[in-house]
Amino acid sequence: MTSRRTPTGAAVLQPQVTAAITEAALDELAEAGYGRLSMEAVAKRAGVGKSALYRRWPAKQDMVLAVVAELGVPMAATPDTGSLRGDLLAALTAFRDFLTHPRFARIVPDLIAESARRPELGVAMAELLGEPRRARGAVLLRRAIERGELPADTDLELALDLVAAPVFWRLVARRAPQEEGYLDSVVEFLLRGLSAGAPALIHGEGGR
Amino acid sequence: MTSRRTPTGAAVLQPQVTAAITEAALDELAEAGYGRLSMEAVAKRAGVGKSALYRRWPAKQDMVLAVVAELGVPMAATPDTGSLRGDLLAALTAFRDFLTHPRFARIVPDLIAESARRPELGVAMAELLGEPRRARGAVLLRRAIERGELPADTDLELALDLVAAPVFWRLVARRAPQEEGYLDSVVEFLLRGLSAGAPALIHGEGGR
Repeated sequence: MTSRRTPTGAAVLQPQVTAAITEAALDELAEAGYGRLSMEAVAKRAGVGKSALYRRWPAKQDMVLAVVAELGVPMAATPDTGSLRGDLLAALTAFRDFLTHPRFARIVPDLIAESARRPELGVAMAELLGEPRRARGAVLLRRAIERGELPADTDLELALDLVAAPVFWRLVARRAPQEEGYLDSVVEFLLRGLSAGAPALIHGEGGR
Repeated sequence: MTSRRTPTGAAVLQPQVTAAITEAALDELAEAGYGRLSMEAVAKRAGVGKSALYRRWPAKQDMVLAVVAELGVPMAATPDTGSLRGDLLAALTAFRDFLTHPRFARIVPDLIAESARRPELGVAMAELLGEPRRARGAVLLRRAIERGELPADTDLELALDLVAAPVFWRLVARRAPQEEGYLDSVVEFLLRGLSAGAPALIHGEGGR
């Protein structure tokens, strides 16, 4: 549990302290929101001094995005199910679980609203949370291209938007319930919408 | 400009006062956000007494949603362009204009984040803003069904989600730039995705 390499001149950062601060920061963020979150409150909740926070991150924004990314990025990785349909369902399910996670259900909309007021937060959030999550999503699209389930010239940037958007819109923007079968319906729509130029797939799916 | 009917026992509500309060409330909402908005600040900004607000709306939530809906709902109505492709492009353009409107670009994400903390606000927002906007969007989908461009059994609730989601995701959630042609690409994707069971359309659009 101890660091094997100690950067010259830097204190050793104890992993259990980092873990306690991470938990405290996520709880404060979910309860108070980014705007009202203070380093003091996080330190108090974690049972450490404020200096323990500043040894790890230079400022509030860095701390917040680091702890959100630490938990939020791995949640975007999904297994290879062997088909685009299966992979999309796994990805949408993982995204739903992220957005309805007790902490992230509050943290994600709050950070997005804050980004509308603080553009630098939005830029950093895209870099540290959004892009790493998208990189994990791109994996399944590339697998589908290799299998011939998607056209080789699929626009991955656009496709990633199209995959993520409906679940986010329904759960976060509309706060509407997700009926039984909602994710399956979105998957069928995505298969049709994304498969331009892959006529075999269109025919295969056309009966639904 | 004066009310033609005066409800018995109720004061006449002067339209120019309502208009001044509406402007003041939207400005305060964009600047301070829902959580920090006070009726005092709106009244002061509008140059009226607080009682002028309470004569119109029983509480802050009612005032906020009334003024947001007054401007935001009509923005969802789009003209009949004669084709589903044209209608979808008009609807996506109108939605982009709503989400990038100087006031709504701040107000919409803020209200969504607040809804994660105050479920009753989310319910009222869906009723007073979301559903009336969706009713206007449904008009173009019904026209497409009548023209035979969409299957008669199209799930309108799902289709409305799918149409709105990509623009919202890109502009609000990701705060990513919208390249030239983004809306056109989304329209082509929607035409393919929504047109299951309308094979004539799939063939017509398949060349893109």
